[in-house]
Amino acid sequence: MEADKKIRVAILGSGTVGTGVYKIIQNQKEEFPHKIGSELEVAKILVRNINKQREGIPSEILTDKWADIINDDSIGIVIEVMGGIEPAKTYISEALTKGKNVVTANKDLMAEYGHELLETATAHNCDLLFEAAVAGGIPIIRPIKQCLAANKITEIMGIINGTTNFILTKMTEEGMEFEDALKLATELGYAEADPTADIEGLDAGRKIAILASIAFNSRVSFSDVYTEGISKITAKDIKYAKELGCVIKLIATAKNTETGIEVRVTPMFIPVSHPLASVNDSFNAVFVHGDALGDAMFYGRGAGELPTASAVMGDVIDVCRNTVYNCNGRIGCTCYKNIPIKSMDNIESKYFVSTLLENKSGTLGAVANTFAGNNASIDQMVQKNKIGNNAEVLFIIDNVQEKLFLRSIKELSAMHYVKEISSIIRVHNDIIQ
Amino acid sequence: MEADKKIRVAILGSGTVGTGVYKIIQNQKEEFPHKIGSELEVAKILVRNINKQREGIPSEILTDKWADIINDDSIGIVIEVMGGIEPAKTYISEALTKGKNVVTANKDLMAEYGHELLETATAHNCDLLFEAAVAGGIPIIRPIKQCLAANKITEIMGIINGTTNFILTKMTEEGMEFEDALKLATELGYAEADPTADIEGLDAGRKIAILASIAFNSRVSFSDVYTEGISKITAKDIKYAKELGCVIKLIATAKNTETGIEVRVTPMFIPVSHPLASVNDSFNAVFVHGDALGDAMFYGRGAGELPTASAVMGDVIDVCRNTVYNCNGRIGCTCYKNIPIKSMDNIESKYFVSTLLENKSGTLGAVANTFAGNNASIDQMVQKNKIGNNAEVLFIIDNVQEKLFLRSIKELSAMHYVKEISSIIRVHNDIIQ
Repeated sequence: MEADKKIRVAILGSGTVGTGVYKIIQNQKEEFPHKIGSELEVAKILVRNINKQREGIPSEILTDKWADIINDDSIGIVIEVMGGIEPAKTYISEALTKGKNVVTANKDLMAEYGHELLETATAHNCDLLFEAAVAGGIPIIRPIKQCLAANKITEIMGIINGTTNFILTKMTEEGMEFEDALKLATELGYAEADPTADIEGLDAGRKIAILASIAFNSRVSFSDVYTEGISKITAKDIKYAKELGCVIKLIATAKNTETGIEVRVTPMFIPVSHPLASVNDSFNAVFVHGDALGDAMFYGRGAGELPTASAVMGDVIDVCRNTVYNCNGRIGCTCYKNIPIKSMDNIESKYFVSTLLENKSGTLGAVANTFAGNNASIDQMVQKNKIGNNAEVLFIIDNVQEKLFLRSIKELSAMHYVKEISSIIRVHNDIIQ
Repeated sequence: MEADKKIRVAILGSGTVGTGVYKIIQNQKEEFPHKIGSELEVAKILVRNINKQREGIPSEILTDKWADIINDDSIGIVIEVMGGIEPAKTYISEALTKGKNVVTANKDLMAEYGHELLETATAHNCDLLFEAAVAGGIPIIRPIKQCLAANKITEIMGIINGTTNFILTKMTEEGMEFEDALKLATELGYAEADPTADIEGLDAGRKIAILASIAFNSRVSFSDVYTEGISKITAKDIKYAKELGCVIKLIATAKNTETGIEVRVTPMFIPVSHPLASVNDSFNAVFVHGDALGDAMFYGRGAGELPTASAVMGDVIDVCRNTVYNCNGRIGCTCYKNIPIKSMDNIESKYFVSTLLENKSGTLGAVANTFAGNNASIDQMVQKNKIGNNAEVLFIIDNVQEKLFLRSIKELSAMHYVKEISSIIRVHNDIIQ
């Protein structure tokens, strides 16, 4: 152990997370020698506009030139919190190639190019850590890679997008419609100006790709993930969910089955008794099932300046400990298997279907026959309000393959007495006993 | 990295956890070379009775002689799952001194002699890991030591004893009295023949001592922890808690305040909206508050053969990775501070007090004056049933120092119209807004 060594880091990006990281390093200055056996110092911060004043950050450590960082051999760790694919990918790749360790919070990058970058890290005996890329401040990647390493993990299920969880919470608690809840989320800063990545499930899709890769020791890319967002969910859907003892959550789920990996992001009916049902507002939670562990859940803040910076700094401290003990690269890529990804067509789900049917004898029989003809068994059927000559009828369909279910929906849509299929939402397995 | 090295371990004890560890090592045989860059083999299992048949365990690896293990230089890791202070302490100390790494699930030992043993580990560049000592399969020690290492953690609060949580759950859900719920817990194997350590809060006390030491970077011993059990809790207390929107849980809590560390185990009224309130049956959960992280919670199985073995094996895999990278001892004792422990006398709490008072004018005024004279302010007062000339009256007392509160109780007990003080139970801060 070289106890008197000073470790120097560079931060790429000075947005909210970068600023949070800088703050923590300043606040914890006195703690580092005890925690990591070394001092820790921010050598450089890469910014776009070097002339912009940044409160509390001395201007002499700001630079707008990557060369100032990559060519500075005294910098041992690069902390990438700029986001986006390029130039982050090039910078990380160059840093690793030069023997610099990297900590990143970049889920877009890790979900798409994680494998390639982790290989570069291994080739140069460097650490590439990314705890902050999933579920913000909640420790989840390290617990899975280390604490649960002796488990065969068969399922991960999580609420891993704070924006959509905030919106669904408002819709549930205050009966708001999606558009109004989104507007509120934007006003409060929970949703970005272009909210597409959040509300269409893409952000959660990237995170579940990363989690599934780690949990199943087999690469899952973002392109493998089926994603469906919450923009079509209505206040009425949420009301019907409540009547069935459920809440609607945007659930990212990955299962390691005998026939391959199932991975998707979809809105889902969750029974109120399930631990994920009470995860509200912008909180995140990840549920894990392992063969030895059984069920476990990790809950906390999935985003925000300091929670995300907390996760980044946990990784930085780990890299420092490795540096002091000369064992960087100690835990690299853990994807040593090659498990096939199941096609969405072959994945089984339970479904909630709300319809508007002509109120006429024979209609229900015909609908039931259509489902049955596609192997979709009706578990519950509830007739709601009559609207003119039509009636609103809700169905819960028991587990059936997606392709068969969709064929039944297609056939139903073509029937003249099926006036409308208003909603199709997946249902958690536990809802039907 | 010495990729073709075979790592040999010895297991001390072949009870449920030891058997679980052996099973996992056999089941995961093919995974180890990928996960740790080495094979893993059980060289010896130390047992009391060498002649007892153990299903699935070859008799040639059984031994009843510690010398067979300590003198075998091919054994790199000693897994201690025998429990108790001695001979576990001597064995661990000898193993570390000989340069063997140690993984233990022994909370009694770590809560009392953790500091000494961790110093021995550091002196010999060995790992001494103990994730399984707290909250069974739930990853909590590693997340705090690593993922949250950049946080100043100010509070830890947990349900960390499964037996008492099972009993309280039965009392809450089925209105059972304590004795009946304990009997059921014993029948189902959740409680031991002598349940004292569980029901009197000693087991939780040992675990919170370990957690507080890690979270606050300052040694907290079991003797520092004030413990109160659940044997005095009645079905009526639970009924009254419900009426106040609460459940009663056995809560282990540790706070790092400006005037020192507060650490205790007590039954507590918890508002039903708090995430810990819905942790039921034998499940455990630990709530952590850090300055950067905010709130986070870790939930799962706190005991059992395989969940505990899962935590032990997570540590073993970590030691193996350190061994392969030649960095054992990488994270040792993290208690580098020396924060004083606050005396229970000076700790502030809110309290629920149920009394039987003479039903006579002037009584309530006198009781209120007695509380007020000791700086204990009444937040709520509810008159319940009349019993003869007396009336049951419940009080919620706002935050007040323990010594002042106890003085008020002593004074009340001496008053002739105070017929009984039936229950005194602490109340979570959030119950009074």
